[in-house]
Amino acid sequence: MTLPSALHYFPAPTTQAFCSQCGNPLTRLVPPDDNRERDVCNHCGAVHYRNPLIVVGTVPVWNDQILLCRRAIEPRYDTWTLPAGFMELSETTSQGAMRETDEEAGADITLGRLFTVLDVPRVNQVHMYFLATVTSERLDPGPESLEAKFFKLDDIPWDELSFRTVSHTLKLYLQDRTSGVFTTHYHSIE
Amino acid sequence: MTLPSALHYFPAPTTQAFCSQCGNPLTRLVPPDDNRERDVCNHCGAVHYRNPLIVVGTVPVWNDQILLCRRAIEPRYDTWTLPAGFMELSETTSQGAMRETDEEAGADITLGRLFTVLDVPRVNQVHMYFLATVTSERLDPGPESLEAKFFKLDDIPWDELSFRTVSHTLKLYLQDRTSGVFTTHYHSIE
Repeated sequence: MTLPSALHYFPAPTTQAFCSQCGNPLTRLVPPDDNRERDVCNHCGAVHYRNPLIVVGTVPVWNDQILLCRRAIEPRYDTWTLPAGFMELSETTSQGAMRETDEEAGADITLGRLFTVLDVPRVNQVHMYFLATVTSERLDPGPESLEAKFFKLDDIPWDELSFRTVSHTLKLYLQDRTSGVFTTHYHSIE
Repeated sequence: MTLPSALHYFPAPTTQAFCSQCGNPLTRLVPPDDNRERDVCNHCGAVHYRNPLIVVGTVPVWNDQILLCRRAIEPRYDTWTLPAGFMELSETTSQGAMRETDEEAGADITLGRLFTVLDVPRVNQVHMYFLATVTSERLDPGPESLEAKFFKLDDIPWDELSFRTVSHTLKLYLQDRTSGVFTTHYHSIE
């Protein structure tokens, strides 16, 4: 039997009502040897943990300019972001960062060092940005970007950036560029 | 109605058969505007993404000794590990690293810098270790540890360590200790 196609697809919310293994309703309880409530299936015994997600991206630099993408999707439609997105299975963080840069900007890059690791506990995410050198002026933004564009350092649209992790990473980039020493920065954004 | 308790609880496998939102069977397909197959519910439209998990831990140092825990759980029962575990919702990576150090070793620590970020794509994980200074000799290992113990640097049980991320992090610790400069290291463990 082929199931009918849904008319509208949406990311499954983090609230879980049914067991992914057997389809029965879930219960909230503290499993044996655990210390916090989980979504548990009392029919088959499956415990459904939920954990933070990783967002990976790059700070792509072309001569003295930064590559930003204007978002074609929510949240923060029509604001400027560094290329970034959710890390996928079976890839490394650096592979994910390169993939997102390709998908969102179509930019050719050489990846540099891991630059920022930023906790965003309010949304259960950790964002990781790598430095990158753009190797060709040609861009080819994908469907998640309205536009991809190089900005001179003085022209970064600070008031139209998408996320605090983006502005934080860009500020640290300018700071390290001034000092001449690029390191890996870890911060929590509350 | 109260559901009967399962006799045996287990972590839900990553393979998903039923929708967590409505309980109907899932289908594998590439959703609109996506580029890879996902677990999709054609009844309610929920797309069930799966993503890598974050493991957080510490390198706890007491004078010139390293604190290791002998695992009381699988995988790698009865081998030595740095205190670490899965990052939980609503915490930062550093909070998670401190929590795991408390749960597995009962050690009082002062957290230091983010030290290693290690991709383990084979198991869809990213491991993050922080340096830590132990502030009291008193230990109180929890149910996931058979024992918690300080090892002199020359006595680290290299052949009985639990995971490659643990041995890799310890080697980098000894290396940076020799050079006198501790930095944040990023590597992929294939």
